[in-house]
Amino acid sequence: MIPSLLRGCCALLLGFAFTLAAATWHPPNIVIIFADDLGYGDLGCYGHPSIRTPHLDRMAAEGLRFTDFYSAAEVCTPSRAALLTGRYPIRSGMAGARRVLFPNSKGGLPPGEITIAEALKERGYATAHIGKWHLGIHAGSRPTEQGFDLSFGLPYSNDMDARSDLPRGATSSSDPPVNGWMVPLLRNGEVVEKPADQTTLTRRYTEEAQRFIRESKSRPFFLYFPHTFPHVPLFASPAFRGRSPRGIYGDAVEELDWSVGEILTTLRREDLAERTLVFFTSDNGPWLTQGLQGGSAGLLRDGKGSTWEGGMREPGIAWWPGRIKPGITREPANAMDLFATSLALAGASLPTDRIIDGIDLRPLLLESKPLPERPFFYYRGANLAACRVGMFKAHFFTQTGYGQGKRELHDPPVLFHLARDPGERHNIAAQHADVIAAIQTEVHRHQEKLIPGKPQLD
Amino acid sequence: MIPSLLRGCCALLLGFAFTLAAATWHPPNIVIIFADDLGYGDLGCYGHPSIRTPHLDRMAAEGLRFTDFYSAAEVCTPSRAALLTGRYPIRSGMAGARRVLFPNSKGGLPPGEITIAEALKERGYATAHIGKWHLGIHAGSRPTEQGFDLSFGLPYSNDMDARSDLPRGATSSSDPPVNGWMVPLLRNGEVVEKPADQTTLTRRYTEEAQRFIRESKSRPFFLYFPHTFPHVPLFASPAFRGRSPRGIYGDAVEELDWSVGEILTTLRREDLAERTLVFFTSDNGPWLTQGLQGGSAGLLRDGKGSTWEGGMREPGIAWWPGRIKPGITREPANAMDLFATSLALAGASLPTDRIIDGIDLRPLLLESKPLPERPFFYYRGANLAACRVGMFKAHFFTQTGYGQGKRELHDPPVLFHLARDPGERHNIAAQHADVIAAIQTEVHRHQEKLIPGKPQLD
Repeated sequence: MIPSLLRGCCALLLGFAFTLAAATWHPPNIVIIFADDLGYGDLGCYGHPSIRTPHLDRMAAEGLRFTDFYSAAEVCTPSRAALLTGRYPIRSGMAGARRVLFPNSKGGLPPGEITIAEALKERGYATAHIGKWHLGIHAGSRPTEQGFDLSFGLPYSNDMDARSDLPRGATSSSDPPVNGWMVPLLRNGEVVEKPADQTTLTRRYTEEAQRFIRESKSRPFFLYFPHTFPHVPLFASPAFRGRSPRGIYGDAVEELDWSVGEILTTLRREDLAERTLVFFTSDNGPWLTQGLQGGSAGLLRDGKGSTWEGGMREPGIAWWPGRIKPGITREPANAMDLFATSLALAGASLPTDRIIDGIDLRPLLLESKPLPERPFFYYRGANLAACRVGMFKAHFFTQTGYGQGKRELHDPPVLFHLARDPGERHNIAAQHADVIAAIQTEVHRHQEKLIPGKPQLD
Repeated sequence: MIPSLLRGCCALLLGFAFTLAAATWHPPNIVIIFADDLGYGDLGCYGHPSIRTPHLDRMAAEGLRFTDFYSAAEVCTPSRAALLTGRYPIRSGMAGARRVLFPNSKGGLPPGEITIAEALKERGYATAHIGKWHLGIHAGSRPTEQGFDLSFGLPYSNDMDARSDLPRGATSSSDPPVNGWMVPLLRNGEVVEKPADQTTLTRRYTEEAQRFIRESKSRPFFLYFPHTFPHVPLFASPAFRGRSPRGIYGDAVEELDWSVGEILTTLRREDLAERTLVFFTSDNGPWLTQGLQGGSAGLLRDGKGSTWEGGMREPGIAWWPGRIKPGITREPANAMDLFATSLALAGASLPTDRIIDGIDLRPLLLESKPLPERPFFYYRGANLAACRVGMFKAHFFTQTGYGQGKRELHDPPVLFHLARDPGERHNIAAQHADVIAAIQTEVHRHQEKLIPGKPQLD
């Protein structure tokens, strides 16, 4: 009988502990894992047949999987600026004709912008950026100047700083040269390795992230973990190289999946899982012009660089055992919402001196409540290309792919119903003049208050 | 102490019961649920964003979900013939230029063909066909002459027997006229209703199937449940009509999903779940030419009528609590395998007087073992269009859509790696002459022994 008695007592104690935990509010840890160029259709739980992502699938099964989660931009730099500031990148000047920052760019995320890291640091959070930055390399824009105690990773994309003797097509090769890109690996701005050994980046990022979690567990922490892959050129650790049926693209995604598994395991092992919100998403859609080395947007149209859904709708998974109820949500949400959500969870107020575009997702995440309806604006660079209100999306112009194809202006706009026609094939503008008028009202309201920031990319 | 003691005893007894159940082999019940024109990308668990399929998603989570499951043909009639006989439809004469049977067709499934129902009936199974038949309406081809004790449903597709005054475009309308098609509802060959009220078909099929399960539970049973939807014209019961964000196509799929849930619930309630294999799949890919009233093949190319992957790769879910380990399998398998698998489970021997193309999936289903590698042949009507061996697929000719597009012959064949390039975009024939030669050897081996059956469709 003794074991049964003990079991009973344990259950009782656990019950008490759980009640106490639920009753006392601690600002939770926040982890944002951000893939690079991962497509809507590239994970098992989003329907990919040959890329194996058991850890992300499990994260989705235990958490809340979004069907309509968006990046705030169609390419890398503006997408990251928007995620960290909660604002459309045009407001910070981080959107422009050149699309992203290059190593020779003079601009960067302006010091006056408030990042999640800055806001949470003020609330006593330990903060770390581990992975790709791509928001500027000059004074004021660097991670440690934008609120991060720790920064470990690449200053920009892994296809930059290419060697002058790089063979044609090397970037999109299935076996790119390891030393083809001179991009440095930095720790708090100091060069650790140049060129960075890209084959071990995912593993080293992950180890660094695990160390940060273990060392920060006495206070709340914010970990911003933007991966380098599956952006081309594609590399994977020896343990993953050549393993995926999907080829090197699959190897890179499967190593990313492993990394997510390691982070969640570390959180569980350190008894932090029930005090940590983890959010997984990607910066923009798949880079389709890379051929087999580009991902898939599944049933969505087009990819990276485009304001068709495939360019900006992303996998989105929220995980917080005991707080977020497992399920699927069809509520539209976007990366800018992570700013307002993180600040709310940390008990920080939103800045009142500027427009914040994201909203607090807590009602959806913690109480399964619907979100207020609001427009979502699709920018291509600094130009407004499309707007979604409810299930309707109007395109003012369309343009295929990443710098490819010619711009087609639409006046009146073309209109799609995204739930009935997620592939955006059937223009229903003729039947819905009223919807177009309502969308145009939202656009005017948005543009009336819009003060573009000083251009940083041009 | 008494409750604990009782709990201990119960656990012990349950353990015994489980051991006994595992040790004694009963031929299991077999349920095959077959959707009509459902695409690879149309279920939540295969990545569709706006069609809600919680019951099929749960079935997949509790069962084995296939990423590479195929129908044996690109259109309806031959696909059904192959499923029920385990043979490529060309062998039974159920493939030809006219593609499917029409109400005025003279042919049908030849009486000499052996169906799963005939083989299982011999082993004492109760057998029922509930839903669409489409394998012939003349003597010898009808369900009750092909091994089914009970038959309830439509003799062919729901878009046949169209009224002469049907408005143009009615079939692919989002709101088709209820009495536009004079297709009858039959019970064991007798007309129950004409025209069948298509708005309540899914519900009535489901109720009939539940009744059959309850009434047959003293013996093993085989239920072949080929649904009428989401084939156009699309209808749904009042309870589902107008409910899906995906529109009427979603309403029809969501009612189908409800039906699957009802079947699984009935099996659980009748304590039959652990004695029943349920397999869910579809007859062919989505009918893309139906616009918004056609489904989605997700990231796969093309749809119904085509031998691109979108025409023949289907959702495939095997469910058998306690026997099939939950998971995802990337083993290629196809609907013809259900013949050999069903016979093996029922303890019936395979016919020895004919070629059976399907194989027994028990090693995969029950022991998680890989299947032997074998070629898969993609027929368009009676013409061999493509062949898959391992991950490679060679197309000898390609043709888009359902009767659309012009046939392009490929000599040498175009070649795709289906794991690296599931969307079949990157022809790699030039780099893999050896693979093409090996595939051609398989094709010759197949064609050498091929004796086409007397054409039934022309």
